[in-house]
Parts: sequence; structure tokens; C-alpha cells
Amino acid sequence: MLRTHTCGELNISNINQEVKLSGWVQRSRDLGGMTFVDLRDRYGITQLVFNMETNAALCEQARKLGREYVISIKGIVTERSSKNLKMPTGEVEITVNDIEILNQSKLPPFTIEDNTDGGDELRMKYRYLDLRRNPVKKNLELRHQLSMETRNYLNDLKFIEVETPYLIRSTPEGARDFVVPSRMNQGEFYALPQSPQQYKQLLMVAGYDRYFQIVRCFRDEDLRADRQPEFTQIDCEMSFVTQEDILNTFEGLTKHLFKAIKGVEIKELPRITYADAMKYYGSDKPDTRFEMKFVELNDVTKNKGFKLFDEAELVIGINAKGCSEYTRKQLDELTDFVRKPQIGATGMIYLRYNTDGTLKSSVDKFYTPEDLKLWAEKFNAQPGDLFLILAGKEEKTQKALNELRLEMGTRLGLRNPEVFAPLWVVDFPLLEWDEDTQRFYAKHHPFTSPKPEDIPLIDSNPVAVRANAYDMVINGVEVGGGSIRIHNKDLQKRMFSLLGFSDEEAQNQFGFLMNAFEFGAPPHGGLAFGFDRMCSLFGGSESIRDFIAFPKNNSGRDVMSDSPSSISLDQLKELSLKIEKETK
Amino acid sequence: MLRTHTCGELNISNINQEVKLSGWVQRSRDLGGMTFVDLRDRYGITQLVFNMETNAALCEQARKLGREYVISIKGIVTERSSKNLKMPTGEVEITVNDIEILNQSKLPPFTIEDNTDGGDELRMKYRYLDLRRNPVKKNLELRHQLSMETRNYLNDLKFIEVETPYLIRSTPEGARDFVVPSRMNQGEFYALPQSPQQYKQLLMVAGYDRYFQIVRCFRDEDLRADRQPEFTQIDCEMSFVTQEDILNTFEGLTKHLFKAIKGVEIKELPRITYADAMKYYGSDKPDTRFEMKFVELNDVTKNKGFKLFDEAELVIGINAKGCSEYTRKQLDELTDFVRKPQIGATGMIYLRYNTDGTLKSSVDKFYTPEDLKLWAEKFNAQPGDLFLILAGKEEKTQKALNELRLEMGTRLGLRNPEVFAPLWVVDFPLLEWDEDTQRFYAKHHPFTSPKPEDIPLIDSNPVAVRANAYDMVINGVEVGGGSIRIHNKDLQKRMFSLLGFSDEEAQNQFGFLMNAFEFGAPPHGGLAFGFDRMCSLFGGSESIRDFIAFPKNNSGRDVMSDSPSSISLDQLKELSLKIEKETK
Repeated sequence: MLRTHTCGELNISNINQEVKLSGWVQRSRDLGGMTFVDLRDRYGITQLVFNMETNAALCEQARKLGREYVISIKGIVTERSSKNLKMPTGEVEITVNDIEILNQSKLPPFTIEDNTDGGDELRMKYRYLDLRRNPVKKNLELRHQLSMETRNYLNDLKFIEVETPYLIRSTPEGARDFVVPSRMNQGEFYALPQSPQQYKQLLMVAGYDRYFQIVRCFRDEDLRADRQPEFTQIDCEMSFVTQEDILNTFEGLTKHLFKAIKGVEIKELPRITYADAMKYYGSDKPDTRFEMKFVELNDVTKNKGFKLFDEAELVIGINAKGCSEYTRKQLDELTDFVRKPQIGATGMIYLRYNTDGTLKSSVDKFYTPEDLKLWAEKFNAQPGDLFLILAGKEEKTQKALNELRLEMGTRLGLRNPEVFAPLWVVDFPLLEWDEDTQRFYAKHHPFTSPKPEDIPLIDSNPVAVRANAYDMVINGVEVGGGSIRIHNKDLQKRMFSLLGFSDEEAQNQFGFLMNAFEFGAPPHGGLAFGFDRMCSLFGGSESIRDFIAFPKNNSGRDVMSDSPSSISLDQLKELSLKIEKETK
Repeated sequence: MLRTHTCGELNISNINQEVKLSGWVQRSRDLGGMTFVDLRDRYGITQLVFNMETNAALCEQARKLGREYVISIKGIVTERSSKNLKMPTGEVEITVNDIEILNQSKLPPFTIEDNTDGGDELRMKYRYLDLRRNPVKKNLELRHQLSMETRNYLNDLKFIEVETPYLIRSTPEGARDFVVPSRMNQGEFYALPQSPQQYKQLLMVAGYDRYFQIVRCFRDEDLRADRQPEFTQIDCEMSFVTQEDILNTFEGLTKHLFKAIKGVEIKELPRITYADAMKYYGSDKPDTRFEMKFVELNDVTKNKGFKLFDEAELVIGINAKGCSEYTRKQLDELTDFVRKPQIGATGMIYLRYNTDGTLKSSVDKFYTPEDLKLWAEKFNAQPGDLFLILAGKEEKTQKALNELRLEMGTRLGLRNPEVFAPLWVVDFPLLEWDEDTQRFYAKHHPFTSPKPEDIPLIDSNPVAVRANAYDMVINGVEVGGGSIRIHNKDLQKRMFSLLGFSDEEAQNQFGFLMNAFEFGAPPHGGLAFGFDRMCSLFGGSESIRDFIAFPKNNSGRDVMSDSPSSISLDQLKELSLKIEKETK
């Protein structure tokens, strides 16, 4: 080894030991008679000291070390005269007696500090330098820890990790596949998996009753800030279980991870139905770190001559506790916020419950103080509260109020990233109607089982059918989701016909799984966690990119390696392919 | 849960308990008054008993259960009258009082038994049924165990698992890449990684000093029986280390795995140079479960008028101990064996050292008994031994004798799959000359470091330059290999020019790594284990396919899902691609 210790471990107990350290020059300070160098490695920073009086040549050498030079030194651990108790190695320094330059470094294009001066673009291009920075390193260490804890926890529960293939059959249902041309099978393509869904169900048919895999998945979608073309799932499936068993098992995993990684004790996860989540939060992934539930006001707001409310399908509001003193400017900001095109409300009505007990709204000319008192009662209000109210079509209004609720949560400091509020959202609808294509889509997956008690509704009222499907939501982020699957062939056929598949299409796309179901498929179900998102949540960040070693940008490019790139004509020919660029 | 216990855990201590079990009908036997059903799950088999006298209706129902039906039963654990002590549950049976058919099954196309009647093709097509068989299940369980042990061992040594991208830049050097067309970057392609080599080196540049990853790799090669287009590596890299440190670290891992998984204590791994491996075994992956080293006979065989030997570059033989009584037929078989085109020897000379002390060879007319005595001395022989000798060009003869040695090892029962003989092969040559393209190729990888003492030979005698490269070989199988990498930019440039790259080509193909080397690359090196191969070795099998859940056949097809397959014209158009089939 080119070191006896790392740069993170020496302390007062090592005084007078001769040690060898290797690492990067973080910074050096030339104080005339003395030169100090901070030597950095993955584990920490240790201060090196060089003295002009005792060894001028060595000190001269040290003065010439550039930032990010890789060096190896020998020296004696010495007690510092001025200690830095903020760092684990801060009580000691190394009095160096030998130095070897292992490699030089050009001046890095940005500083390798916790807060760097490098912009996003530059840091992506030199990702290997960005990865040297402490915050990024901590993210990857967290990710490693989370995957280790997850594997050991599931292994203890007799889950078996099975590697499923990455070169699979392309299925047109769902998001767009990345495809891989086959050279040996001219004109044919593999697809990269969007998830190992069908393989994990086959493993259940094969009797492996508790499967998991931490697995890469691929989706060729237009990217948003928090999406990557490749992402990682903790993918799980179980046999001979009910929904209850799955929720309990993965609630256990979640509690374990919070305890092991964050030292946080999580109590039993609340469960909320999809219907209630929409009713009280306007979202199927409510942020429950704070209350501020929706309150319906239809019966106390209608028929008083205020057209907006009278014509609205839904009048709902939230209680921003203690905000009655909001200024006109603040209220205008909120109105502007809900009017943004991506939120789409036409306006916002407010009602102040002043600390003197009076009520003041933006629609005073339509409502008497007695009317407004009824509103306040609905909100279970106290003097000092402020009620923010939206009205309009049900779904649209719920969604807009969800955004306003989150905005208020942020403004009131109720969304602390170090507070965690996980919950289960259950009883999702089985189907979703798509206006564009005029057909039903499976809300979760075409193999998701309807609730047995709702099966009679399949023909009469399909949208009312609830599924045995569930999401785990933490702090407004959907971190996982899954369902009990259909294992009955006839029910599966009915499901496909509901989704507009002919028998032939269903057979063509999902044939190998459906055939497998004919050979003794057990009742089974599972779920998948979005691992990148889970990492970012545990790391207190909104961006998953910070938790991926080598992420791609919003055009799906890796700017570091300049990929994707063109390939040779020979290579194309071997694949029987020709490029035909569209002239747009 | 649809069970209180699994089918593998009930025993005499559970007598009289009421239990619920779920699983598959392995077989049922109708003995008139009694019907016995073997219920199987992942954990074992439990016998169910139905009695016509006590519950005729239930017994009738049991009689109708087909093979592989999925059922759930309730009953009482009862002591068997005739116990089967070979199985863990063999002392008990379940007296069933309720049965629920969870799913029916068509008759499987082959029997779900340890020794099945299904052929390869059929078992691949119905892989989910093949996976139900005990031997296949044990393989996947072994694989899971190996990956868990590997991860925990490396984690304890502060290795960090980092997920590197699967959509990367295509590099023409080495084997053929699988490519992935990019829709968002018209006419451009990603490649799937043949290994995360460059990324793991970047992680060293980034300071992560101990990296590992159990990772899928892809190679678009024409497939042989033991190759798959996608395969798994245990990929590792370390900084601030010498070759010695890497060998010790992964020797430790190997010993741990043998101890933890097989209960086998492995002593220190022998090390042999590449040169010696070729000299004594004619192979860089010698099977050292048995001795039978090559003996060179040039000085005792030449100039006696036997043209074959006189003209040969090399005369070498092996000592097949105790085989002096081999019949003419057996010797002819061996001669036929070495004459096979893929082995390519022109013939084989033998010399018997009879138990009466006399010597008898197939070339007696050229050599006196005294001559032959000198041969026998070279072989360190004892009466009863048989010497098998080949002659010809050096490399070709070594290779042929290697095959003969392995064949003799097999015939003599010296290659027990439950005996493990790991070793390191070190000091590989840096370069390999390719006659076809008339250029040097890197034997291991263009980033492999030459031995410092051999650097002066780079220009004068490139083929003599040895690399800091090493393979781990077990039982004649290369399970892992790696090298110390070049971290010096100038040496790297020299290496590329030796490999015939112009500066521009090197920059184009490996630019992002070479650029990274300018910002303080530490000394580093690593290795990768072939995980599929390691699994098959631990499982005592020659085929890696048996250790992959969903393997592909020799044409790269998954016959179960019928993949690869054609994709739609719309999809091709989105990718700016057109298929141009060659008319061959």
C-alpha cells in the first residue's frame, strides 16, 4: 500500500508514530518559515507541515505543489499547537520528512470545495472532479449504504436476488422502449427493460416466492429535470400474500432504512385511500409533513350571487394558520402563483380571520359576516388564520389547490427535508380514461388485480373499479408503488379486452407471460421503489441527478464522454441498418 | 399470508399444530382408502394425507388434483407411520381438513423432477417451469448467496459499490459493442458497456479509492456454449496500491467465499508466471488439481535419427502415473484425440515404464534402452508409469499437450469438481502481435501498466515486455483478471503509439479518460471476476447457462419470449433508421 493510514483517521492517539499518507493537495499555505498543506483523500483531510529551518529543500518542494497534485508523504504525527476541533484529524499534523509526487494536476476548472464556483455544465463535463467534492461523495456513500441495508434486510427475510435480462422483448404498451439492434438476427431488435415486471412475475410462477433485485431500468422519454433515461429500482415480488402482507413487509424495510441510515424512528405508516388523497390534498402523493387539509365549501358558498362560486363544480380552500396578517402584496403573489399556466386557476379568494375576531374577505360584497362565519367554522379556525379558496371544475381545482398548499407549506417552513412523513396511498382506480386515444389505460399495469368486491362493476362502471394497488409516498414524493397481480387467466383476458386489446394483440405482446399463467401461477404481488428518488429523499435533496455517479443531461447526453455519438458505416451495415435523417 | 408455514419446515416438533400450507402439487398417489399428495414450494416438500373414511368428499377432491396445481390447505401436523428420514419433513404429514384450489395447471411439457425428461430446447422455452426444478433453483440460490457474501466482504473492507451507466460511448477497440440508437440525438448511438473499465478508472481519478460493482456487461460476439451476450462481472478497482495489495485483497475474498459457501479452507494461492504456466502446462489457465507437469526432452531425444524429434522445435511429454498397462486400444484413442483438427498434433509417442522395470516405446528402433532410461529419469518416473510425448513447433505442441494433459486428468479421475485449486498467473506479456492486422494488441487492455523494469524494452523488444497483469485461475478456468493501470500520461501516449493509434485516434476513442488523467490520477489497479463462471465453478458445473435465470441460446435468442423481434415502422422512423437486409 502506498499509505499506512488514510487522511481521515489520525488523531491524538497516534502522536509520534511514523506514518505514510497518500492523497490530493487540497490547499497549501506558505507562511514564510512554515508551509502547511492540506492532504485530502476519500476519508478526510490531514494537515502536513513543512519547516524552512529543519528542511529547506523539502519545504521548497512543498511550496511548489499545485492544487490536486497527487502526493505520497512520510512523516511523524505531531500534536498541533492550534487545534481545529471541528475536524476529526484537527488535533494533529504530520511533520513531513519525505515527499513523493505521484502525479501532477492541471489547474481544475472549478474549485474542489463543498461550495464550488463551477456551474452545472462545467461540473457535468468534468464529473470526475465534481465527484471529488464532499457533498457529492456523501451522496454516493449514502446510496451504497442504502443498497447494502436493503439487500441485507431482504436477504434476512429470505428474499432472493435474481438477475433478470437486460436484452428483452420489446412491448409497445406503456412508455417508449430503448431498442438494441441484433446483428445475429437481422432486422430484429431487443429492448432494454422499463422494469423487470414480466420476469419477476415469471419468477413467481417458477416458485421463487420472495424475489428482489436492485436493477437498472430504461425509458426513452423526453426528459425532465428529475428524470434520467436510465434509473434504478428496488424491484420486489412475493407469492402467497395479500396486499396487507406486502404493505407490512415493505413498511418494515422502510422503517429499517430510516433507522439504520438516518437514525429516525418511523411509526406505523398511515394509510389513505386514493379518493381521500384527492379529496383532502388534491394529489395522490400528498406531502403530509404538514396538515392544511382541503376543506369543501360548496354548501356555504353557493347561491349568494357570487358567480364564480355559483358556477363552480367545487369550492375548496385551505387554512393557512397564523397568516391573517399577510399583506396585500403577499396575497397578490399567491394569486399570481395559482394563475401560472402550469397551475391554471383563474383566481384566488381569501378570507382573513383577524386576531380581533373580525372576518375580512375579498368577496365581502356577496357575503355577510354571518355567511363568512360559517366558512370559518368549516375551517375549524382560530383568530389569526387565513383561508385561501379556489373554485372551478373538480379535478383541476384540486390540482391547483394542491400546488397552493405545497407553496404555503414551503413559505411557512413546514417542509423540512430532515422530517420524514411516509404513508401508503391505497385503493387506486384500476383504469384511467385517455381522451386522446379514446381508450382505457391501466392506471398501474395491465396485470394489476381489481379489488374482488369491485369485479361486478367492471362492465357496468369501469372507472369506479378500484385496484389492489398501492403507492408509498414520502414528503410528497412517490418513492414506491405496486399491486397485487391478476393470476387468473379469465380475469386477465377480461382486463385485456377492457383495455381494447384483441386476443391476438394480447397474445402477441404478453403471450409468454399469459402462457406461463396456465401452468400453475400462484397468487402474487409486489412493488418497486425508485431507488434514485429514495436516495435523494434520504439525502434531503430534490434532484436525483446528484445521487447518480455519471448522470445524463436533459437531452440524454453524457457531456463528459460526449455520448451518444455516431458509429461507423461498417457497424451499421453489420446491423443491417441505414440512417435516414428527417429534414424537419 | 396464504400460509402459516412453508413446505420445508414442519417436523416432529410441530405435531398436532393446525397449519396452513400453499404450494404446487408435485405428485399424488391414490391408494384406495388413502390419497397422498406431495405439496412443493421453494423450501421443500410436505406430504398431505386424505382419508376416504373420515372425509370422502375432500379425498375425492384431492384425487382430482393435477400435477402443478396450486393449492392452499389447512390441516393438522401428524406423525407419519412410515417415516422418510431422507427429507427434513419426512417424519410428519398433514391430515388435511380443507383445501382451496388457487390455480389449475395444464400438464407441464416435461416433468418437474431433479432429472427431467425435457430436452434443452423445451426447457428453455418453458424456462419458468425448468426454474421450478430443484437443481436449477439451487443454482440461483447459490448465485444469490455468492453475491451477498461478496458484497458484505467488500463492504467490510470499505469498498463502495457505485452504479456506472449502461448507456455509454461506443469504442471500436476490443470486442463488438451492442449499440442503442438515440431518438433524441438523431443518427447517434449509445453503446452497452463491455465492462465499466473506463468508469471505474474515472472513479479512481475522483478519489473513491476502493470501488466495486456487481454489474451486467454486454458483448456482441458470435456465441459459444459458455458465452452469453449479457454476462455479470464482479468489477473492482483500488487506488494507492501495488499489484501485491490487489492480489492479497482478492485472494482474501476468494478464500472467504470458499469458506462461507462451500465450507472449504483454501491455503495461500500459489503464483506462477505466464512463462512458467506455458512451459509446464501449455496454458495460461492451468488446471492444478493434478500435477502431471510438462517435461522437456529436447536434449535426450535429438540426434538419434528419429526425424520427427530431430526436426521439432520442442519435444515435451507428460507422465501418466500408473498407466503403463494401458492397452493398444487406449493408446490409439489418445493418438486419435491429439490428432483431432482442433488439437492438431501429427501423432503421439509413448514410453511405458513396465512394472518389471523394462522400458518399451513406440520408437524403440531409434532409441536404445539406455537412451530411454534418460527419458524416464527426466520424468522422475517409477515402474508402472506411462509417458506421452508430443513434438513440433513450440506453441502448437504446448497447446496440444495441454489438451492431452486435461484429457488424461479426466480419464484418471483427477478433476473432481468438488476439489478446488485456485492460483494466480502473473507477469503476462503486455502485448500480443496479430498476424492478420499486422499490429500489436494489448493483451489485457490498453491501460495496463508494463512492469517498470521492462519499460526500457518497449522500443527494442516489445514482445518481451511483461505487464503488471494477473489472472485468477481455478481448476483450469479463468475466473478473474486485472492489472495495474498506467496513470502517467506520457507512458500512456507511448502505449497508444505502440498499439498503432495516432494521437488523434487515441484522443477520439479514449479522450475523456486521458483528459481525466491530467487532473491528478492516483496510481491504481483492479480486477474483474466473471460472476457467471464463478457461480458455475462453485456449483460444480461447466455450463454458465445453468446459473443464469433467463439465458439466451447460441443465436442470442430468448426462445421463451421469442426475442429479439421486429419493431414497428413508426418506431424505426422515430429513431431515423431503416432496415436494409443483405441478400446473401
